[in-house]
Amino acid sequence: MKTLSILGSTGSIGTQTLEVVRSHPDQFRVVAISGGTNLNRLREQIKMFSPKLVSVKTKELAEELRREVGSRVTIVYGEEGLIEVATHPDANFVVTAVVGSIGLRPTIEAIKVGKHIGLANKETLVSAGHIVMDLAKKHQIPILPIDSEHSAIYQSLNSEKKEQVRRIILTASGGSFRDKTREELRNVSIQDALKHPNWSMGAKITIDSATMMNKGLEIIEAHWLFQMPFDKIDVMIHPESIIHSMVEYVDRAIIAQLGTPDMKVPIQYALSYPDRFELKQEPLDLTKIGSLHFQKPDFRRFPSLKMAYECGKDGGTMPTVLNAANEEIVAAFLAGKVPFIEIESFIEKVLDQHLKISNPNLEEIMEADQWARKMIANLLK
Amino acid sequence: MKTLSILGSTGSIGTQTLEVVRSHPDQFRVVAISGGTNLNRLREQIKMFSPKLVSVKTKELAEELRREVGSRVTIVYGEEGLIEVATHPDANFVVTAVVGSIGLRPTIEAIKVGKHIGLANKETLVSAGHIVMDLAKKHQIPILPIDSEHSAIYQSLNSEKKEQVRRIILTASGGSFRDKTREELRNVSIQDALKHPNWSMGAKITIDSATMMNKGLEIIEAHWLFQMPFDKIDVMIHPESIIHSMVEYVDRAIIAQLGTPDMKVPIQYALSYPDRFELKQEPLDLTKIGSLHFQKPDFRRFPSLKMAYECGKDGGTMPTVLNAANEEIVAAFLAGKVPFIEIESFIEKVLDQHLKISNPNLEEIMEADQWARKMIANLLK
Repeated sequence: MKTLSILGSTGSIGTQTLEVVRSHPDQFRVVAISGGTNLNRLREQIKMFSPKLVSVKTKELAEELRREVGSRVTIVYGEEGLIEVATHPDANFVVTAVVGSIGLRPTIEAIKVGKHIGLANKETLVSAGHIVMDLAKKHQIPILPIDSEHSAIYQSLNSEKKEQVRRIILTASGGSFRDKTREELRNVSIQDALKHPNWSMGAKITIDSATMMNKGLEIIEAHWLFQMPFDKIDVMIHPESIIHSMVEYVDRAIIAQLGTPDMKVPIQYALSYPDRFELKQEPLDLTKIGSLHFQKPDFRRFPSLKMAYECGKDGGTMPTVLNAANEEIVAAFLAGKVPFIEIESFIEKVLDQHLKISNPNLEEIMEADQWARKMIANLLK
Repeated sequence: MKTLSILGSTGSIGTQTLEVVRSHPDQFRVVAISGGTNLNRLREQIKMFSPKLVSVKTKELAEELRREVGSRVTIVYGEEGLIEVATHPDANFVVTAVVGSIGLRPTIEAIKVGKHIGLANKETLVSAGHIVMDLAKKHQIPILPIDSEHSAIYQSLNSEKKEQVRRIILTASGGSFRDKTREELRNVSIQDALKHPNWSMGAKITIDSATMMNKGLEIIEAHWLFQMPFDKIDVMIHPESIIHSMVEYVDRAIIAQLGTPDMKVPIQYALSYPDRFELKQEPLDLTKIGSLHFQKPDFRRFPSLKMAYECGKDGGTMPTVLNAANEEIVAAFLAGKVPFIEIESFIEKVLDQHLKISNPNLEEIMEADQWARKMIANLLK
């Protein structure tokens, strides 16, 4: 039986993870959860899954929840709370489903105490891939991706030899504005940007899909997760999001994973690996869909993609800054402070001013992350 | 190093197998070949690959070739010659690339003496699947499919658990007449039927593609090869032949193998398994192809598919009769003796008159095979 800690249990991935748990009660048990500020949902989850430990964002929220649940659940808070959830001694598997670089330290602490990781928090690998992967290797910890693309690659690599891979092909829907020119992006609204054509996801990742920064971050994530050089990682626009990604081998055979766009598949795969469990869901019927389409991404239309390749190849603190600047400017866009069309130029300005540190330690990564956030704040003033 | 015997070295699969051998001289060596009546090609192959043993169709051809090559190559002939090639003591891997049920006995003899099998002769499994698979199991011999669809399934099953498979999906181009109604099939010519939209293959299999009997035989082949019940084997028309087949798992994830339609990929995979070797070939570019299409096959349009499912489920000698009747009527069509539109009705008549033997032994299979061939001959009189 897998005993789970879930970082970010009230978000999109977190709630779907709990649905997977609920449909396989003989396979999974929830030990600890963290849920930010959404007390209502946390109350339901405590009732249904009886975790031993729950973390919330602030001391005040923790006190409020503590009064309600009494002594049967331990309530903690803040970054230290997240780390307590990530390292709970009764859990053997940690799902990191918080959004943004806040997931970094808890993930590192979980690896250090031997937890297996289901990684939905791609910013962890983008920000500090070399540190996380070195630690995982040292502690012999598997990192199972909970991202439809990386799960597809993981499944397509199954038992094949890495040196026989010719390239990885990440598919991308192209997001809510795929067919718009940059000119047409001038007047799009927040509501329009939040309408993803295929996937139901959180707000931040939906905006990242519209700029294709999500794919950019995934390129860097794939680089670390599969230890592939950037020139062996390609991106292909595939509007239907049915082929979730592919691996091409030296013999030109391509192995791909397909399915309906449903995050429960990669979530459950990470939890059930190396087995597969029944997932009650309408199976994919390609004859109903009729056709699948593919096109090359245009770097001028999607400058985020180009920035991500460049930052990935540059290495050091560049991906950290890319990620942090993106988080802040997307938050600003969602708050109505900046138009969609300007997201990339803000990030570019921050990257231009960054003095890269090569092979940074965790502290230097945290500093670069904070620096980038401040830079965005200054530019927004 | 793999040492090879190739049954059917002068045919389409045989010559491509030799091309694979030639591009990896450090990995493969040819020990024995059989080549029917094509002496010219056999002469070239003897020159280039220096096999120790060569088999031809008749005593006369053997004598002719023997006079030319002298004592450096042993020349044999007929079915016994095929068996000598299949069981040559210096070979550890046998590629069965002859067409039709003539491949059955040599394959069985090869398994009995411990050869690993690269199976391009699907009629072997269609005619006598239970005998061949039981023997392979008993002798712990891997049977590696050399059929793009079954190779795709083999690759997609790689290290997964069979009991976690929900269904196998064989893709089918639909052949040269996919978009014609049955009415429009009345006046098609042999030349039209031989124009396969995607694959360059031998004449018999190209006609089988046009009737979709090829897919029917593949259903039965998949049943034996992957030990799957028929209700877990589906067929989907996919005109571009890019997705070579797929496996759906219980979690609704589908794993598929894709590539350009080139038989060298499955041939080399069977030879290189569990490794993959470089194959110099233009890689698949889905963005150039642009779109892939899928549709349900219509059993009334393609009665061969329906007959194959029914014979497969019926079992016993029914698939043997289906296969032998089909071989004979396709040969008659290629000889201009019967119109394309009547192929299926001839087979149906033979099936209707067959008294099934359940769980037949090899002799009973051979008898049923001969009976079906005679029945077609009588019907053609």
